[in-house]
Amino acid sequence: MTLTGKMLIGQHAITGNSAAIRAINPATDLPLEPAYPGGSGEHVEQACALARAAFDSYHATSLATRARFLDTMADEIEALGDELIERAVAESGLPRPRILGERGRTCQQLRTFARTVRAGEWLDVRVDPALPERQPLPRSDLRQRQVALGPVAVFGASNFPLAFSVAGGDTASALAAGCPVIVKAHSAHPGTSELVGRAVARAVEKSELHPGVFSLLFGSGREVGIALVSDPRIKAVGFTGSRSGGMALCKAAQARREPIPVYAEMSSINPVVLFPAALQARGEALAQGFVTSLTQGAGQFCTNPGLVIARQGPALERFISVAADLVQRSPAQTMLTPGIFQAYESGIGSLLEHAHAQPVAVGLKREAPNQCQTHLFVTRAEDFLADTALQAEVFGAAALIVQCADDEQIRQVIEFLEGQLTATLHLDDADVEAARALLPTLERKAGRLLVNGWPTGVEVCDAMVHGGPFPATSDPRTTSVGTAAIQRFLRPVCYQDFPDTLLPAALKHSNPLQLRRLLDGQREA
Amino acid sequence: MTLTGKMLIGQHAITGNSAAIRAINPATDLPLEPAYPGGSGEHVEQACALARAAFDSYHATSLATRARFLDTMADEIEALGDELIERAVAESGLPRPRILGERGRTCQQLRTFARTVRAGEWLDVRVDPALPERQPLPRSDLRQRQVALGPVAVFGASNFPLAFSVAGGDTASALAAGCPVIVKAHSAHPGTSELVGRAVARAVEKSELHPGVFSLLFGSGREVGIALVSDPRIKAVGFTGSRSGGMALCKAAQARREPIPVYAEMSSINPVVLFPAALQARGEALAQGFVTSLTQGAGQFCTNPGLVIARQGPALERFISVAADLVQRSPAQTMLTPGIFQAYESGIGSLLEHAHAQPVAVGLKREAPNQCQTHLFVTRAEDFLADTALQAEVFGAAALIVQCADDEQIRQVIEFLEGQLTATLHLDDADVEAARALLPTLERKAGRLLVNGWPTGVEVCDAMVHGGPFPATSDPRTTSVGTAAIQRFLRPVCYQDFPDTLLPAALKHSNPLQLRRLLDGQREA
Repeated sequence: MTLTGKMLIGQHAITGNSAAIRAINPATDLPLEPAYPGGSGEHVEQACALARAAFDSYHATSLATRARFLDTMADEIEALGDELIERAVAESGLPRPRILGERGRTCQQLRTFARTVRAGEWLDVRVDPALPERQPLPRSDLRQRQVALGPVAVFGASNFPLAFSVAGGDTASALAAGCPVIVKAHSAHPGTSELVGRAVARAVEKSELHPGVFSLLFGSGREVGIALVSDPRIKAVGFTGSRSGGMALCKAAQARREPIPVYAEMSSINPVVLFPAALQARGEALAQGFVTSLTQGAGQFCTNPGLVIARQGPALERFISVAADLVQRSPAQTMLTPGIFQAYESGIGSLLEHAHAQPVAVGLKREAPNQCQTHLFVTRAEDFLADTALQAEVFGAAALIVQCADDEQIRQVIEFLEGQLTATLHLDDADVEAARALLPTLERKAGRLLVNGWPTGVEVCDAMVHGGPFPATSDPRTTSVGTAAIQRFLRPVCYQDFPDTLLPAALKHSNPLQLRRLLDGQREA
Repeated sequence: MTLTGKMLIGQHAITGNSAAIRAINPATDLPLEPAYPGGSGEHVEQACALARAAFDSYHATSLATRARFLDTMADEIEALGDELIERAVAESGLPRPRILGERGRTCQQLRTFARTVRAGEWLDVRVDPALPERQPLPRSDLRQRQVALGPVAVFGASNFPLAFSVAGGDTASALAAGCPVIVKAHSAHPGTSELVGRAVARAVEKSELHPGVFSLLFGSGREVGIALVSDPRIKAVGFTGSRSGGMALCKAAQARREPIPVYAEMSSINPVVLFPAALQARGEALAQGFVTSLTQGAGQFCTNPGLVIARQGPALERFISVAADLVQRSPAQTMLTPGIFQAYESGIGSLLEHAHAQPVAVGLKREAPNQCQTHLFVTRAEDFLADTALQAEVFGAAALIVQCADDEQIRQVIEFLEGQLTATLHLDDADVEAARALLPTLERKAGRLLVNGWPTGVEVCDAMVHGGPFPATSDPRTTSVGTAAIQRFLRPVCYQDFPDTLLPAALKHSNPLQLRRLLDGQREA
């Protein structure tokens, strides 16, 4: 396959007519072929009309058909072979093993959603049978299932060019829910996007689905994205990226005649609390684990541990000293894009100028363009509590250690934090009661709480929560990773006194899908 | 008990310091004692601070404690006896049997949520146990449960002074979820609100809960309400009322630094489709059922059938003729407030002036202030499709019949509708295939679909959906009636590699709450 620079509106490859984007290899700062002319209003219009036309038939597909489609998507992505891997490495600057792993994760994610679709738990079927003899009034037969919201706009993320992009978690969960998807490709990896987009379009064709189930648009500015979110046929939005980008989409979604949900995963500094006994017993190992997590992938993870909170004293001094040493020996790493590198440098610049952020270590010098040097800073709790600027996310391998006087100050620092994707506790047996006292505060602040681990590494499973209070996300009621992500694209419908022939399969009296329904208040065995 | 005109901030009765509201008996247009001085910013501040202070301990209550609290609320409301009934009748103009029924519904609703809390299904527990041997990477132990969002602001509805007001569905579901509640009382029934508010406060005290679990504020304008929604400690809003009121709250919620969900149930005209065979076979009975549903409670139900859609012809002519006769003989009924009466008159005035809304029947003359005369109009599908003004809700006993040329025009009319709470189909066996063809469109438009019934009458049960696409509600992913309403006030949290002692009861390895968890992808029997 040769890259064409074309968008996909259903099965049609279309050349855009607005300013072109061109991927930059961040390792060399050189542009990559081909150019990707951007779409415009007419392409948004066509893609939305096609998605709308696809909705009723796609939503009516059987669970088996929809699951096979997701499995076929995974097969088609694997069939792209090395061309996909090479292009993704060139466009992202990420090492080949990481991209290989990410492809595996992407395909596993699609197959996990296929299993989830088949199992049907997400239909949340509730049945309250008729009670014709009830006094003072009879009860009707009432049956509830979840239906799909409608066509969904997905914005690919820069930092997961496969797992959170064209066929990533947002797309997989929306398609699983029965929603057609229009992807606005991230401008950092158009070639990767084209390859994966074609794989998805092939899966649509092989599965004999309406072509409007999937479209892929490019665009250099915000025009295509805002037009997509503003289109009345779009019923929900998935986004992973910056706070300003996410908030712009939220604003556009709220300005519509019919406001729609935006699931924007935006910013998080992922606090790590080191409790005294753990810090005392294994400060060196903690410092090692911390720096490994901090520097992984040049720190370009939403769950990167950017804030360490602990009681001041000799144990914390030792931790800082070991961590500083490891940071100083950490190699510079290529960042995803020149823009992300510049934003990182700007964030580091602000911290270096900050009167109360004390730099304690810098990583090895950069040897190529767009390389991230690791940075470690220290501050005191009083200073942290005096300035929200110290909790602004610096996307990359930078962290701040907050020295606290006592447990109460640790609690204050956590209470002062904005919403987070994760919060981590390192503790030993002697720390358990102090941790217990902190849990209500942590539960209010983060979507995932970890004990004695590191927040990077997000499992795709039923119990995962990759979400959290604002500004970690725009909607704390949801997760963007794991099978519960499907719920974002669903709404309940109740069917009252329907004859069996008109009921959807999920609700028929014979329960042909063999679901464990909530029947008259009891979960079926 | 004597009414005091005071608000409740926790257990403290406080006299407001802004303009007073005073209930009007709509049957006589005479004011009722006492005056209710409104609150101001300082009262919002106090109530929010107290609710925030109550959150962690209330959220940590056992399921049994929280369920007993809800049961105690119901007991305390019943213990108010006849004083509550008389005051609610005087403030609402609703007949005594209706208020007696509504009290029963309100207490049953609280007890239903108590059962729901005890059963624990809403915790949606998901467990993915550790896989230490998995290749290439081990899996951590991951456990998910739902936690409460935080303090919730509830705005009472005028048309259900008990069942959707101070201790109504929004309050019951938020308290069930573990959220403290601050109610902004509806200005139409302050005395009813005070009585019920005191009953709730007594239940808080008897249950030995933090006093901040419940507060009740009054206010004559929008100031108290907007201040409540804007307070950073409030994490969600429940509202039932007008479209303009709901949209004002949505706007305030989005203007916050941390936007929050608003569950506003706003407007719906509840289309009813009469299919040919049913219309032919039992047009008279359908007209009888329709007018009964239309005129119930002076048409002041969110689910009032305001739009009838059918194929033109002799059968529809007969239906219209019978319905017109019944409408002409329907007595005028007192509306809830002078303001609602005036809005009804204004809406009827617009229809009477509309070139394409043909009046076919008016009910009996009014004999007292604020009485609603039933109105029936007819229009042609072409005219309906040409002007969205014909689908504006006229809150009260008014309906419009849309005459269609064929099935395709029926489909076009439904497609043209905004989002609805309900859609109703009247059909016989010969109509089943025509109805089937219409279902995908109806599912996109409404939260509840009924066959051969009438939409007024909303069961409080597990399968109910009282919700729907905008503008029926501001969030189609939810319901405000039925046990699924609890989900509006929850968010998921994942606990990774937690020692058992730190896990909440719902997630402990021994499963002490005996929940049917989603364990490793399988629902436990």
